[in-house]
Amino acid sequence: MVGGGPGAMIGAAHRHAMWLDNQYVLAAGIFGRHRHASAAFAEGLGVERVYDDYREMAEQEAAREDGVDVVAVVTPNDTHFEIARAFLEAGISVVCEKPLTNDSDTAAALVTIAESTQTILAVPHIYSAYAMVRHAARMVRNGELGRIRFVAAEHASGWASAQIDQWRMDPERGGVATAVADVGTHAFHLLRYITGLEATRVSAELSTLVPGRPVFDNATMRLTLSNGAPATVWATMAATGHEHGLRIRVFGDDASLEWRHEDPQHLTIRDPDGGSTILAQGMGTLSDDAARITRVGLGHPEGFLEAFANFYLDLAEMLRGQTARELSIPTGVDGLIGVRFVEATVTSQVNDAAWVNFPESP
Amino acid sequence: MVGGGPGAMIGAAHRHAMWLDNQYVLAAGIFGRHRHASAAFAEGLGVERVYDDYREMAEQEAAREDGVDVVAVVTPNDTHFEIARAFLEAGISVVCEKPLTNDSDTAAALVTIAESTQTILAVPHIYSAYAMVRHAARMVRNGELGRIRFVAAEHASGWASAQIDQWRMDPERGGVATAVADVGTHAFHLLRYITGLEATRVSAELSTLVPGRPVFDNATMRLTLSNGAPATVWATMAATGHEHGLRIRVFGDDASLEWRHEDPQHLTIRDPDGGSTILAQGMGTLSDDAARITRVGLGHPEGFLEAFANFYLDLAEMLRGQTARELSIPTGVDGLIGVRFVEATVTSQVNDAAWVNFPESP
Amino acid sequence: MVGGGPGAMIGAAHRHAMWLDNQYVLAAGIFGRHRHASAAFAEGLGVERVYDDYREMAEQEAAREDGVDVVAVVTPNDTHFEIARAFLEAGISVVCEKPLTNDSDTAAALVTIAESTQTILAVPHIYSAYAMVRHAARMVRNGELGRIRFVAAEHASGWASAQIDQWRMDPERGGVATAVADVGTHAFHLLRYITGLEATRVSAELSTLVPGRPVFDNATMRLTLSNGAPATVWATMAATGHEHGLRIRVFGDDASLEWRHEDPQHLTIRDPDGGSTILAQGMGTLSDDAARITRVGLGHPEGFLEAFANFYLDLAEMLRGQTARELSIPTGVDGLIGVRFVEATVTSQVNDAAWVNFPESP
Amino acid sequence: MVGGGPGAMIGAAHRHAMWLDNQYVLAAGIFGRHRHASAAFAEGLGVERVYDDYREMAEQEAAREDGVDVVAVVTPNDTHFEIARAFLEAGISVVCEKPLTNDSDTAAALVTIAESTQTILAVPHIYSAYAMVRHAARMVRNGELGRIRFVAAEHASGWASAQIDQWRMDPERGGVATAVADVGTHAFHLLRYITGLEATRVSAELSTLVPGRPVFDNATMRLTLSNGAPATVWATMAATGHEHGLRIRVFGDDASLEWRHEDPQHLTIRDPDGGSTILAQGMGTLSDDAARITRVGLGHPEGFLEAFANFYLDLAEMLRGQTARELSIPTGVDGLIGVRFVEATVTSQVNDAAWVNFPESP
Repeated sequence: MVGGGPGAMIGAAHRHAMWLDNQYVLAAGIFGRHRHASAAFAEGLGVERVYDDYREMAEQEAAREDGVDVVAVVTPNDTHFEIARAFLEAGISVVCEKPLTNDSDTAAALVTIAESTQTILAVPHIYSAYAMVRHAARMVRNGELGRIRFVAAEHASGWASAQIDQWRMDPERGGVATAVADVGTHAFHLLRYITGLEATRVSAELSTLVPGRPVFDNATMRLTLSNGAPATVWATMAATGHEHGLRIRVFGDDASLEWRHEDPQHLTIRDPDGGSTILAQGMGTLSDDAARITRVGLGHPEGFLEAFANFYLDLAEMLRGQTARELSIPTGVDGLIGVRFVEATVTSQVNDAAWVNFPESP
Repeated sequence: MVGGGPGAMIGAAHRHAMWLDNQYVLAAGIFGRHRHASAAFAEGLGVERVYDDYREMAEQEAAREDGVDVVAVVTPNDTHFEIARAFLEAGISVVCEKPLTNDSDTAAALVTIAESTQTILAVPHIYSAYAMVRHAARMVRNGELGRIRFVAAEHASGWASAQIDQWRMDPERGGVATAVADVGTHAFHLLRYITGLEATRVSAELSTLVPGRPVFDNATMRLTLSNGAPATVWATMAATGHEHGLRIRVFGDDASLEWRHEDPQHLTIRDPDGGSTILAQGMGTLSDDAARITRVGLGHPEGFLEAFANFYLDLAEMLRGQTARELSIPTGVDGLIGVRFVEATVTSQVNDAAWVNFPESP
Repeated sequence: MVGGGPGAMIGAAHRHAMWLDNQYVLAAGIFGRHRHASAAFAEGLGVERVYDDYREMAEQEAAREDGVDVVAVVTPNDTHFEIARAFLEAGISVVCEKPLTNDSDTAAALVTIAESTQTILAVPHIYSAYAMVRHAARMVRNGELGRIRFVAAEHASGWASAQIDQWRMDPERGGVATAVADVGTHAFHLLRYITGLEATRVSAELSTLVPGRPVFDNATMRLTLSNGAPATVWATMAATGHEHGLRIRVFGDDASLEWRHEDPQHLTIRDPDGGSTILAQGMGTLSDDAARITRVGLGHPEGFLEAFANFYLDLAEMLRGQTARELSIPTGVDGLIGVRFVEATVTSQVNDAAWVNFPESP
Repeated sequence: MVGGGPGAMIGAAHRHAMWLDNQYVLAAGIFGRHRHASAAFAEGLGVERVYDDYREMAEQEAAREDGVDVVAVVTPNDTHFEIARAFLEAGISVVCEKPLTNDSDTAAALVTIAESTQTILAVPHIYSAYAMVRHAARMVRNGELGRIRFVAAEHASGWASAQIDQWRMDPERGGVATAVADVGTHAFHLLRYITGLEATRVSAELSTLVPGRPVFDNATMRLTLSNGAPATVWATMAATGHEHGLRIRVFGDDASLEWRHEDPQHLTIRDPDGGSTILAQGMGTLSDDAARITRVGLGHPEGFLEAFANFYLDLAEMLRGQTARELSIPTGVDGLIGVRFVEATVTSQVNDAAWVNFPESP
C-alpha cells in the first residue's frame, strides 16, 4: 500500500476489505511522507517491509521472490500516475484510487502499460461490488427491465457542505471539477455498470455551492447513452444534510429499478402498474452474481466494507489467473473512461454547458 | 364548472374539494359537449343550471342576482383562453387549470383582463396548498435553511409509461412539450412557491421516452434562480413504475428540506451534521400557515383532496374580499410564468438545450 | 348530529366526511349543552333545525316528512346508550361513536332495538374503510395469505403521552380501561375485519404509563383467534412521540401483510423468500373493493377523511335499502363485540392477566 | 474455534469478525466431527493446529507457550457446557454462542468456573455491539428519554416460516422453547442492554406456527422491568416474509427511540410533539460509544459483520487486561440471565401463561 497513513479513511477501508476474507497479507508499504511516522504506523499494522520511496518499493518488491502481488495506491490524485506507473512497469498489479489520474493521456498511458506488462490495473469504484448492484446489472442484462429509456443517477453527498481544508479542494491537486472527479465518477460508473451502456456525449453545468471554494463542488450533467436514451447525473459534496447520497434509478420500458447506498442490501423494482417489489440480499431467488458475494444471509446487512471486500475477492481471483467474470470489478479502462468524463464536463462548462462528444471507447 | 364531465378525474377532484368544507354550492355548469349527457350528469350532481355554451353561461350567470361567483375551467388546454376570457370579461372569477393557456400572449391577456375587471384568476397548482408545503415555504422565508444554494425538483410520474390515447398526447391540443406543460409546471411552481425565488434562465432537453409518441414526454431542465443558485427540474409522465412522482429537495447553507407527494403529511429537514428531522402535519409546533389548513390532526393523513380543498378555502377568502395571505394560492401571474416556462423549454430544445433567458417578471 | 360542537375534532371529521361526496345534508342537530352556543354553531354550519334535547329531536325529526334519515352520535361514551336508543326507537338510524356503550348489556340492547325497529346502527371504526384495508381483507378471503398463523395489531398513539385533562381520562365517563376503549377497539376491529376471524379468549395486562393518571392508558393483549391462531394487540395513547400509531401485521402460511395508518394508501405483502411487494391505492390490478372507494387515483393520497367518507358512502347505500356488501362498514354487532372486548380485558386484568373466554358471538 | 465447519453460517461470521480488524489469528480448531473434513477445512483457512477432541485441544493449547488466548464455541446448544467448561478450566477464555447452555445450573456453573479461573466468558449477543445500539444505551443512561415507561422488543424472523430440518428444531438438542432460545434471547438482551433495566417477572405464551413442528417457534412475552415498567417481547422464526426482524422501541417520559436491524446505522428518536429525528452512524455529534466503533463514516453502512467485529474488538481489549468499558460486551452473567429467561418462559407456558418471577440477579 502506498498512502493511507494515520487518519486516512480510504486507506483504512482498503485494509479492512483485504482482511475481511483473509485473502490478503499486507506485507509492504509507504504510509506517508514522514519516515518515522510511516514506520511506526506500519509496525502497528504488522507490515513487515516499509519503504521511503515508491520507486524503491516497486523495484525491491519486484525483485523479491515473496514480493507483493498487488499494491494499492491511495494517495492524492496528482500523484497517481507516477506511482501506478512505477509498479505496473515493475510487473506489479495496481489498485489505483479514482480518478485514475488527472488527465486522460496519463490514464491511457497506464492502461497501455498494464497491457504491455500483463499486470492488472483495477479502480475501486466500490459501489459496483455491492451484491444488489450486481443483481441489478444482471436483471438489466437479462432484459427484465426491457429497453432502457432513462437513467437518473446522483452522488449528492453532504460531506463538504461547509468550508473544509483538504487537498480535494485544491485545484492544483485534484483538478477544478472536484464534484465530478470525487463523486461524479462513482455515479457515472454505477450507471455504466448497471445498464451496460456507454455515454456518447455529455453536457455539464459546474457550479460552486459553498461560497469562496476554489473548485466546482456541484455538477449537473446530461448524458446521451449509447442506445440513444437520455440520462442525468448529479454530483456534489455540498448537499447540506445528506449522508453519502449515492442513488440510481434506471427506467426501462417494462420496469424500473432503484438502488440507494444508504440501504444497500435492498433493491426496488417498480412495475408499470405502480406496484413495487423490494428485493433483499440473501433471498434464495437472487442471481448467482449476488449470491456469491453474500456472506451472511437474509436480514443481515452487509455494508461498505463488505462491498470493498467483494472488490478484493474478485481481484484475488484475477491475480490467481482466473478470467474476470462478466460482472466483475472496474479496471483501467473504466478508470480512463472516468477521467474522460471529468475532462468532458470541464470542456462543456467552459462552453456554456454545450454538448461534448465522448471519444469512441478505447 | 366548465368541463369535468363523466370520467374526468380532475373535474371530480375540483368538486370534492369544493364540497369537503361545505363552502361552495355547485350551481351551474357545462359537463361536456353533448347536451343530454351534460344535463344528465348535472342532475346527478344536483346542479341546477346547465348550459350548452360557455358564452351563454357567462352572460346569463353574470346577469343573475344569484349567479355564480367563480367558475372552474377544466377543459383541454387549447380551450382555456376563450372560456376563461368569457367569464372574466363578464365579471366572474375563474379557476383555470394549468397550463393557463398554450402561449404566453393569451396567458398575459387573461391576467390583464382579470385586473381590469377586478376578478380573480386562480390556477390550481394544488401541491402548494399542502400544509407541509406551506410550512416548508415558511421555513425558507424565516431563514431556517439559510441562503438557498441548490434545488432539485422532479415531477416524474409513471401514468403514461405506455402508449395512451388522450388529448394530452396530441400536440395540437396540449402543445409539443407535454411533459413540461402537464407536470413540469407543477414542479416549477412548487420550486418557486417554497423558495420564493424566480428563475432567470432555463436550459431544457426534451425527449420522447415512449417510442412513437408525437410529443415530448420527458424533460430535464436546468434553471438559474434569481439569487444565482442553480436548480434542476425533471418532468416526465413515462417514469415506469412511479406513482405520481412529485418531489422537491431544497438545499440551504444551514439545512435542507425534502417533501414528497407520496407522503405529503411529512416534511424532512436535514442538518449539516447528517441528522434529519421529520416534521408531521398536526404537530403543535408548526407554523400557522400549516396549522390553519390542518383539519384533523397528528397522525391523521390528509391527502390530495384536502390540499385541493385548501386551495378552494383560500379562494373563498379572496372571493369574500379578504386580502390574499402571504402564503396563498397561485393566481394568473403564476399561470403566466408557467406558460413562459413551457415556451422557454421549447425554445431551448430547438437550440440544442441552450440557455434561454426568462423575461423580467410581469 | 348530536355532539361535535366547537373544538370537537371527531364531530368535524364526521361532517367533512358527509360533505366530501355531497351525499348528505346536515339538517338538524344539537351541538353542545349550551343552547346559544349550539344554535350559533349550527347557523355557521347551515344547519336548519337545532334542538335542546335529544329526545325532543328524535321525536320531532321522526314526525317530519323531511326528517333526518340518520343521526351521528358523537358525545362522551357514557351518554351513547340513552341518545342512540332514543333515535333508534324513533325509527331513525344511528351512527354511534365507539365504544358503543360502556357495558355490553346496553350495547346488546341497542343491537336488539335496531333489529326490532329495522334501523341501521353503525359504528365508525373508520380504519376498515380505507381502500387498502379493504383490499387486505379481500386478499385474506381470497386465500392469498394461506391459513392465518399469527396477527400483531397495535394502536399505539402518542396523543396523551403527558397529563391531559379530558373526559376520556375520567373513569366515570369513559371507564377505567381507556386504552382499550379508546384505541384498542380500533385495532381489534381492524384485526377482525381483515382476517375475518373472531377472538375466542383474551389475556390483558392493563397499566398506567403516565404517573398519576386515574385510568389505564396502556394495554397489552393476547388473543386466541377462532381458527386457533395466537394474536397480540397493543393499545396505548402514551407511546411518547408516536403519531396515531395504528398498524397491523397479518401472517399467513403463504405470505404476510402489513398496513400502517401513517401511510394508508400502501399495503405491503411479504413473501416467504423475504421479498416484499408494496401495493398502492389506484393500481389497476387491485380488487374492486378498493377500486370503488378510490376517488382520484395512483399517487394521489387519500387520507382519514376519505376513509371516513367511505364509511358514509356505504351507509348511504344501506340507507337507500341496498344489501350491505360483503366488505362493508361495522354495525351494532361489531360495536357490541368491541364492548365485550373492553369488558374482557378488565376481567383479565383483575385476575392477574388470566385468560378470559369471549361469549359465543351473538 | 470449536464447530463452525463447512456450511455453518455462524462460524463463518465469527471468523470474518475476527479478521476484519486484523486483531486475531485463527490458530487452532475443530471444524466438525469428521477428522478429515475438519482438517481439510482448517487448511483452507490457514489454521495450523487441528484437533479431534475439545479436551485434547484445551489441554494442549493450555500447555503451549503460544496457545490460543480464547476459543469460540459455535456448536449446537446441548454441547456448549462440556466444551466451554473444558477450556475455562484449562485457563482459556471462551466465546460461547447463545443460549449459553440448556439449563441455568450449568450456565451458572460456567460463570463460577470463569470467575475462579480468571478467564473471560463472553456471549455473542452481537446486536448490542452495533454503534447505534451503543448510542441508544448511552442516551438512556444520560437520561435523554427520561424515565422508561414501556419497551416493545421483537425478534420476529422469517427464516423458518416453512418446515425445516435442523438441530434447532430438535427439542433434544435445543430445548422445546426454540423461539425464545434462538432469537428471543437476543431481543431480551437488547432490551436489557439499552435500558439498563432487568426483568423481575415474565409471562409467556409459547405456540407453534408451523404445523407439525415439534418445538415452539413463536413466543409472546410480557415482562415487568426492575423500575416497574411493563414491556413486551415477541420472538419467532416463523414470521412469514420477514427478514431478520429484530427491532426495539423504548418509550420514556421525555422521548422514545427505535432501532431496527434491517437499517442498523440509523436510530430514530421521537419527541412528544410527534416529530422524529433520525440519527446516522458517523455523525460528529454522536457519543464516543458509537464513534469508537465506527470504521468508515457517515453514509457508509456498517452491518452485521462489523457489529460482530466490534464484539471481538472489545473482547481483545479485555484479553489484554483492560477493564471492560461501561458499554461493552455480554459476558457469562448475561448468558446465564438469558438461560433463566428461557426457563421462565417454559414454566409460564405450562402454567397457562402465568407470571413467573425471575430469581434475584446473581
